Amino acid sequence: MDRIESKAERPDKPVGGGRTASRFDLVLDTVARLLRRGAIGNLERIVSKMHPADVAKMLHHLNTAQEKRTVFELIKPDTSKATVLSELDEGDIGDVLQDMPAADIAMLLKDLPDDDQAYVITTLPEERSQEILKLMKPEDSAEVKDLLQYEPKTAGAIMTTEYFSLTEDTTAEEAIRKLQGAKDTGNVFYVYVTDRGEKLVGVLSLRQLLQVQPHTRLGTMIKREVISVTTDTDQEEVAKLVARYNLLAIPVVDKENTLVGIITVDDVVDIIHDAATEDMLKMSGTQIEEEDVLMHSSVFQAVRHRVPWLLTNLIGSIVSGSILWFFRFTIEEVVALVTFIPVIAAMGGNVGLQSSTMIIRGLATGRIEQSDVKRVFAREVLIGFLIGLLCGGVTLAFAAIMHINLHLGLVVGVAMVCALCMSTSMATIMPVVLKRYGVDPAVAAGPFVTTANDITGITIYLSLATTFLSYLK
Amino acid sequence: MDRIESKAERPDKPVGGGRTASRFDLVLDTVARLLRRGAIGNLERIVSKMHPADVAKMLHHLNTAQEKRTVFELIKPDTSKATVLSELDEGDIGDVLQDMPAADIAMLLKDLPDDDQAYVITTLPEERSQEILKLMKPEDSAEVKDLLQYEPKTAGAIMTTEYFSLTEDTTAEEAIRKLQGAKDTGNVFYVYVTDRGEKLVGVLSLRQLLQVQPHTRLGTMIKREVISVTTDTDQEEVAKLVARYNLLAIPVVDKENTLVGIITVDDVVDIIHDAATEDMLKMSGTQIEEEDVLMHSSVFQAVRHRVPWLLTNLIGSIVSGSILWFFRFTIEEVVALVTFIPVIAAMGGNVGLQSSTMIIRGLATGRIEQSDVKRVFAREVLIGFLIGLLCGGVTLAFAAIMHINLHLGLVVGVAMVCALCMSTSMATIMPVVLKRYGVDPAVAAGPFVTTANDITGITIYLSLATTFLSYLK
Repeated sequence: MDRIESKAERPDKPVGGGRTASRFDLVLDTVARLLRRGAIGNLERIVSKMHPADVAKMLHHLNTAQEKRTVFELIKPDTSKATVLSELDEGDIGDVLQDMPAADIAMLLKDLPDDDQAYVITTLPEERSQEILKLMKPEDSAEVKDLLQYEPKTAGAIMTTEYFSLTEDTTAEEAIRKLQGAKDTGNVFYVYVTDRGEKLVGVLSLRQLLQVQPHTRLGTMIKREVISVTTDTDQEEVAKLVARYNLLAIPVVDKENTLVGIITVDDVVDIIHDAATEDMLKMSGTQIEEEDVLMHSSVFQAVRHRVPWLLTNLIGSIVSGSILWFFRFTIEEVVALVTFIPVIAAMGGNVGLQSSTMIIRGLATGRIEQSDVKRVFAREVLIGFLIGLLCGGVTLAFAAIMHINLHLGLVVGVAMVCALCMSTSMATIMPVVLKRYGVDPAVAAGPFVTTANDITGITIYLSLATTFLSYLK
Repeated sequence: MDRIESKAERPDKPVGGGRTASRFDLVLDTVARLLRRGAIGNLERIVSKMHPADVAKMLHHLNTAQEKRTVFELIKPDTSKATVLSELDEGDIGDVLQDMPAADIAMLLKDLPDDDQAYVITTLPEERSQEILKLMKPEDSAEVKDLLQYEPKTAGAIMTTEYFSLTEDTTAEEAIRKLQGAKDTGNVFYVYVTDRGEKLVGVLSLRQLLQVQPHTRLGTMIKREVISVTTDTDQEEVAKLVARYNLLAIPVVDKENTLVGIITVDDVVDIIHDAATEDMLKMSGTQIEEEDVLMHSSVFQAVRHRVPWLLTNLIGSIVSGSILWFFRFTIEEVVALVTFIPVIAAMGGNVGLQSSTMIIRGLATGRIEQSDVKRVFAREVLIGFLIGLLCGGVTLAFAAIMHINLHLGLVVGVAMVCALCMSTSMATIMPVVLKRYGVDPAVAAGPFVTTANDITGITIYLSLATTFLSYLK
C-alpha cells in the first residue's frame, strides 16, 4: 500500500454509522473486554479488519493511555499505524507515542503526507519533535520544517506540498505519462500549471486531461483565473472559498504567486466541523479553541477554560441583584412584583439569544453582510415588539388573575414589550459592532447578551413599577 | 461549456473572501447603483465577469424581487444561468423564476445535473413543477421524478444519478476509453464497479486506473469493501461517513445493493454547514430547519417560528416567579435575599449552558458516545462543584460585605454550590436521555435547560434561606 492510499481514496470496511449506528459501541465493548482478558490474538484480528479512521475513533474512547498503546501496537502494517496516528487528536497522540523511541516515530512518519507529518510533530513536546526531525530523511524534514514555520491555522500551516504541477508547454500525453510515473500523487484532483518561474498560471481537471487530443499543450486548455489563497490566509477563510466554489482542492501561493502547496477538501471538512464547534462553545461562554481540550483535559483545566466568562457574568448578575436591592422599597410595598422578575429577565435573555444566534451564524456563513445590518436590525426590533406584545399579553393576563391586580398586569405587560425590544436590538447590534472591531462575534452571544438583557429588563420593569407604585397597591 | 463544468471544476474568478474580504460589499454597492440608474450595459459586464457562486450570493443580497430578476436575466450563457439557479435558495429561486414561462425554465434546467434539477423543482409550487416536468425531455424528467420520490433529507433525495460505473470484466484501457467518450461525467473521482446485475461490488480511483497495465481487468484491482449508504440514510449520517473516511463521493445503493446514485463531497460540505446552523438555532430555542427561512421570510413567519419555545419558557419562568411568590414571607422578612435571586438563577443557567453545549456538540460529532456518558456525567458534576465553590465563594464574600451578614453569605454560597451541581447534571443528562428517545438533543439546550435551572436554583436558594431564616435576620 503506498502513501496515496492513506488519503481520501481508501474505502475500507467502515465500522460506525450508516445502518449500524450502535455497532461502534458494540465493537468498543468487545475491545475493552478483550483488553481486560489480555486476548491479544483476538484483538489483533479485530483491529486488522477495521478502517484506520475507526481505529483512531476507538483509541480515542479507550479509558487509559496504556490501553491505547496496547491497541496501537497491534495495528499492522506501519503505513496503517501512521494513518491512524494522523487521525488522532493531540491528547491521544501523546498517549500512544509516550514511550516510543524517536527513531521509531521518524520511521512511522515517513509514510505520511507532509501536512500530516507536521501535524503529528506539532503535537509533541518541543525537544522530542526536534529529535524526530533530526532522524528523518533531510528532504522530508526540510518540507516539514517549512510547514512548521507558518502561523498556526493559516493556509501555510495546513497545506500539503504534495501536489501535481506541470509547465504550460507540456502536452496532454506527456502529462498523463508523468502522472502515471508519479509517486506522491494521492491528492490529484486537479493538475496545476505553472510558468517556468513556478508561478501559478492555470488549472485543469484530471478528467479534462483524458478528454483532449494527446498533443494538446496544457497552456491552451487551462482555466487561467484560478481561485487561490496565500500562505497567510486564515483557515476558515480557506474553508469558505472551497465551500462557496465547490472545489476539491485549493492552491496556496506565496506573495510572488509561486505555487507552494494545496489544501484538499477533506481537510476543509474538518475545519468546518471545528469552526462550528468553536462558535457554539464560544456562544456558551467557554473560552476554548477545541472541544477536545474541554472533554479530555483534566477537570482543573476544564474549569479554567470555563471560569473567565462565568466570572464576568457573575459580576453582571450581581449588578442585576443590586438593582433589585436598589428597588427594595418598591418590592417591600408590593411583594407581588417579585413574581415577574424571573419572567422579565428570562424572556429578555431568551429572545435576545435567538436574535444573536441568528446574526452570529449569518455573519459566520456570509448570509448576512455588513450591508444588510440596518435591515436586519429593523426587522429584529419589530420581531421583538411583536413577541413582546404576545408574551406581555399572556403575562398581563396571568398577573391580573393571580394577584387580582390589573395595574400590576399592565406594568408587567408594558415592561415586557420594552424589555424585548431592547433585548433584540442589543442582541443584533453587539455582534455586528464586535465584528467591526475585529472581535469574534460568537463571544458576544450567550451569557454576555443574556446578562446585559437581565440588567436592562429588570431596570425597565422596576422603574415602571416605582413610577406607578401608587396604582399597584 | 458542458454540463461537467457546472460542478466542482470551474475555478472562475472569485469575488468575495480571501484577500478581498470587503470586496463583496463593494460589488454589491456598485450593482445596486447601476440598477437604480438602469445602466444595463455596465451591469451585464460586471455580471459576466463574476463566478456563478458570487452572482448567486449577490442576488441573495439584493433588496427586491424585481432587481433580482433584472440581474438574473443578464447572466449569459444559459448554462451559467442554470448554475446560478442551482446555487440560490428557495426564496430567491421563487423571486427570479416568478414570471418565467414553464417552457423556459425547462430549457434552463436541462443544463443542470439531475440532483440540482430536482432541487430547483422542489422549491416551486406543485402545479408549476408538474408543468415543467411535462415539458422536459422524458428521460430527464423520469430521472428527476425518481429523485423526487425519496423522503427529503435522505441520501436518495440528495444524490445524483450521474456517476460513472463499469462492469468487473472491463479492462483499464477500455475504461479510459469509455471515460473519454462519456458526457455526463462531472463527478468522476471514483470509478464504481458493478457485477452484471448492477450490484455494487467495488471501487477504484481515476488515478489508479491510469497507473495499471492497459489490459488489467477492473475486477482484479478494485477495493471490494465499499463504504456506501442506502437511499433512506439520513443526510447527516451521510455527511458523517464522508467526513470520517475522507471520501470525495459516496455511492448510494438500494435495498438489493444495486448502485442507484452517488453523493459528492461538495454537497456534503453544504450539509455540514446547514446541520451546524440548525443545531445552533435549535439551541437558541428557534424551531426552524433553515436559517434562510428565518432571515428572509415575513416578520410574522419569523415570529411564528420563534414563539413556540418562548411560550414554553414563559410558562417555566412564571413557575420560577410563582416559587418566589410562594416564598414571599421569607423575602419580606429578609429583603436582602432578593439581591441574589438573579445571581443564582443566572449562574445555574450559564454553567448548564456550557455543559449542555459541549454534550450536544459531542453527540453530534461523535466525540461522545453513549459509552462515555457515565464518565462525562461524573466529570461535569465535579466541574459544577468546583465552579460552584469558586463562584459561591465570591458571592459569599460579596453578600457578607454588602449586607454585613455572614449568615446570608453562607446561605447564598451553599445554594450556589448545590445549584451548579444540579445544573451541570441536568444539562448533561437531558440531551443524552432525549437522544436515546430519538429527540434531537439540540432542542434540550438553551432556553429549556436554562429555565429548568432557574427553577431548581431559586427553589434551592429560598428553601435554604427559609430553613435558616432565624439566623439571617
